[in-house]
Amino acid sequence: MELSQALEQLAALQTKLYAYQCASSSLYLDSVTVAPRDTAQGRGVALGVLAGEQHKLLTDPAVGQLLDFLDQHTEELSQLQRRQVEELGRNYRQLQRIPADEYMAYAQLTNQASDVWHKAKENNDFASFQPVLERLVAFNQKFAGYYDPDKVPYDALLGEYERGVDMAYLDRFFAAVREKLVPVIHAIGKKEQPDDSFLFRHYPVEAQRKFSDYLMEVLGLDRSHCAIGETEHPFTLEFNNKDVRITTNYDPHNVASSMYSVIHEGGHAKYELNIRDDVQYTCLSGGVSMGVHESQSRLYENLIGRSLPFIQAIFPRMREFFPEQLSDVTAEQFYRAVNKAQPSLIRTEADELTYCLHIMVRYEIEKQLIGGTLAVADVPATWNRLYKEYLGVDVPDDKRGCLQDSHWSGGSFGYFPSYALGSAYGAQMLRNMEREFDVWGPVSRGDLSQVSAWLKDKVHQYGGLLTPAEVVRNACGDFDPTVYTDYLVDKYSKLYEL
Amino acid sequence: MELSQALEQLAALQTKLYAYQCASSSLYLDSVTVAPRDTAQGRGVALGVLAGEQHKLLTDPAVGQLLDFLDQHTEELSQLQRRQVEELGRNYRQLQRIPADEYMAYAQLTNQASDVWHKAKENNDFASFQPVLERLVAFNQKFAGYYDPDKVPYDALLGEYERGVDMAYLDRFFAAVREKLVPVIHAIGKKEQPDDSFLFRHYPVEAQRKFSDYLMEVLGLDRSHCAIGETEHPFTLEFNNKDVRITTNYDPHNVASSMYSVIHEGGHAKYELNIRDDVQYTCLSGGVSMGVHESQSRLYENLIGRSLPFIQAIFPRMREFFPEQLSDVTAEQFYRAVNKAQPSLIRTEADELTYCLHIMVRYEIEKQLIGGTLAVADVPATWNRLYKEYLGVDVPDDKRGCLQDSHWSGGSFGYFPSYALGSAYGAQMLRNMEREFDVWGPVSRGDLSQVSAWLKDKVHQYGGLLTPAEVVRNACGDFDPTVYTDYLVDKYSKLYEL
Repeated sequence: MELSQALEQLAALQTKLYAYQCASSSLYLDSVTVAPRDTAQGRGVALGVLAGEQHKLLTDPAVGQLLDFLDQHTEELSQLQRRQVEELGRNYRQLQRIPADEYMAYAQLTNQASDVWHKAKENNDFASFQPVLERLVAFNQKFAGYYDPDKVPYDALLGEYERGVDMAYLDRFFAAVREKLVPVIHAIGKKEQPDDSFLFRHYPVEAQRKFSDYLMEVLGLDRSHCAIGETEHPFTLEFNNKDVRITTNYDPHNVASSMYSVIHEGGHAKYELNIRDDVQYTCLSGGVSMGVHESQSRLYENLIGRSLPFIQAIFPRMREFFPEQLSDVTAEQFYRAVNKAQPSLIRTEADELTYCLHIMVRYEIEKQLIGGTLAVADVPATWNRLYKEYLGVDVPDDKRGCLQDSHWSGGSFGYFPSYALGSAYGAQMLRNMEREFDVWGPVSRGDLSQVSAWLKDKVHQYGGLLTPAEVVRNACGDFDPTVYTDYLVDKYSKLYEL
Repeated sequence: MELSQALEQLAALQTKLYAYQCASSSLYLDSVTVAPRDTAQGRGVALGVLAGEQHKLLTDPAVGQLLDFLDQHTEELSQLQRRQVEELGRNYRQLQRIPADEYMAYAQLTNQASDVWHKAKENNDFASFQPVLERLVAFNQKFAGYYDPDKVPYDALLGEYERGVDMAYLDRFFAAVREKLVPVIHAIGKKEQPDDSFLFRHYPVEAQRKFSDYLMEVLGLDRSHCAIGETEHPFTLEFNNKDVRITTNYDPHNVASSMYSVIHEGGHAKYELNIRDDVQYTCLSGGVSMGVHESQSRLYENLIGRSLPFIQAIFPRMREFFPEQLSDVTAEQFYRAVNKAQPSLIRTEADELTYCLHIMVRYEIEKQLIGGTLAVADVPATWNRLYKEYLGVDVPDDKRGCLQDSHWSGGSFGYFPSYALGSAYGAQMLRNMEREFDVWGPVSRGDLSQVSAWLKDKVHQYGGLLTPAEVVRNACGDFDPTVYTDYLVDKYSKLYEL
């Protein structure tokens, strides 16, 4: 085989994978935004075929030979090509290790599990979910060995979501979180809470839609390449760096809900839109990892979006969208309201301070579940005990307890920690920005262009060209969880006069 | 090969084709409803791959062998399987006849042509479109021979859109149309027109959206299987019989525009939603032909939707959606306004009476273009002459003349006549219904269930299980264009007191 021929095949393979991914994404996007309710069956048939074709492509022995050949010519490859061969090779070898029947059985299981979980949550019935969760855990324990035979299972799973992260890394991180944040949370419990009742006045959806348009403008999102849709659980979906979609959910009685959802998803979108052209339609397109992605969304949402300078900048315009609702409210009052910290039951509604503790509960449980030291039957009791310990709250039922998240039913174990890591990475990025230029002057005038430019330079542009660890080092330096905990302790000490 | 094995392969082939179709449809639907403006590139990459895979599947020699094998066992096949083998075989043999390089060149040409046409129309510049149109005509003359080597080219093309229809069939039809309708149109030209100014008052889009929901309810469309979206040029798209999408376009200064668009597309959707389950995910899913499809949409839009009983039935509710706009209007006045007949320039805005003449112009030109008796350069002059002759109007420019439709730029020659045929088929269906049951009593109470049931029984259920000619015979009997022309002459003679 000629090298030039092999490189053509490498490109063609990736274009085809992109096309299948693009098709599946389009069907998914449609299903959760505009599709009629009872249309899952036909979509399932199509998605099944597309997944099968994708799997066939990635397990084709000819692909293995191609990647081997290219692997023997690394010195003649560009950095881009080397990284592609590395990533595809990793993927190919993983799939080779998974027996076809197990792969199929797992795909079927996760398909069913989502339905079972939905009903179990609705009926507050953990027992009905338990046997499925047991099978999911068993599969993940086994698959972990296929993913990375050199690691203990949970480390292998963690590495799937955030290459380079393992329990040693996370234990250090969460120890800092627990040590620094739990006392602050307890101290706040004894303080008077700010009035946030005005957030829950009636905010008509039509006005909220216009406000979203304004927020996207402030974020500098190019609407000719980024649309906003409506869905139940907001998410961002990228087709490529010229076509990104964010979604939100409008609650007519909670203005902050969609507002911070748009800023959060907008942060994800900024990342995707800023990725360089030459990794598009390859396995390196898209943000490099969940953790790095969350660092961007949570940086925009919390570090910028919930800062006083940002709120002061946008509040005058915000009052134009909601003149009646906000006539008696100041920017400062708004700032205090959207930064109210209060231990609660539901992760997705948690404030910036307590959020990490919600993740910590899930991390502890996953570690023990996959490690084999916790039985699935004992998850509810452990969940409730840890919520009491970390957050000081009593969990009244499993619906608002261990059944609240969809992740496990989708087969995701090791995903949650990325959320918390992302927040910590973001804090380090912000500190580094503050050392390099005046962040808050421009932000207080609603100008985020320098923040965006810095993030594009340090993080966004690379897509998957660098590894997650390289991107983190590039933007954060050495990972130091105390930067994040110090940031939170400082912010909340001032807010609550601790 | 075992028969059972062959049948499994037949089913698998069709499921795969369905998946590719479903994926392409999803990308298309997204692109014309919610996608951001500048996102064509990445979608084009994905659609190109999907089309290539589809083509590869359909030209695979193994598929040819499979279809040959099944063809030798027809007596052991069900009617459903026989029809599948017939349709797929026809498709396979056609594609075999098209040289791969010509197929690719044509795909590229139609891709480009759409852009060229868009700009030509915008700039009223036929000359810039002319060379592309010449190539499109030449390709279609040649491809016609691949489609059906036994027919003259235009007949072969017509057969692609409506199996069994040819120039002899259409000449007879259009002769009746010309003879009966042109005098009526001329006579109306001398009469006073009804006042329709109230149609163009300000109708807020939000209220129009709610009105659409109501119309879909009246049509009996199950919203859990049928959604409505917004787009520039309304269309209906089906994924399968449990998932159909209609689209509309709201003009805040024209209430009839979206209203009749929703009823028209709703007619298409009724068809798709009523197709039997056992043809889903096969090559027989979906309505059988363009002509039969238009018979359904135009039956709902015009024969029912523009009838006095229907308007009387819905008008009280309509006034609730638009109380200010319609307070001084009666159902009868509304009926007259939406049936105003007036020769005009633009096909898509034409009324029920003059519509067929717009089609006739296109039919005459296509016949000569593909027949080789009209040069592309002479299209504008011929277009203008025929509009004067049939409709009595002067065409001021090509933008409002021969550049108005997208069809030719997409490579569609022989498609237009289906619109007119559909109207005529619909009129015959209505007459047959009137003979069998009381149509107008229930319609005047807003109850379309019997009409729907009859159409489901005679037309919808079959999908592609019967041929277009069989469906037409089933629902219309022998095709008799005078049923249609008599219906129009009668309706408009009363409206205009001729």
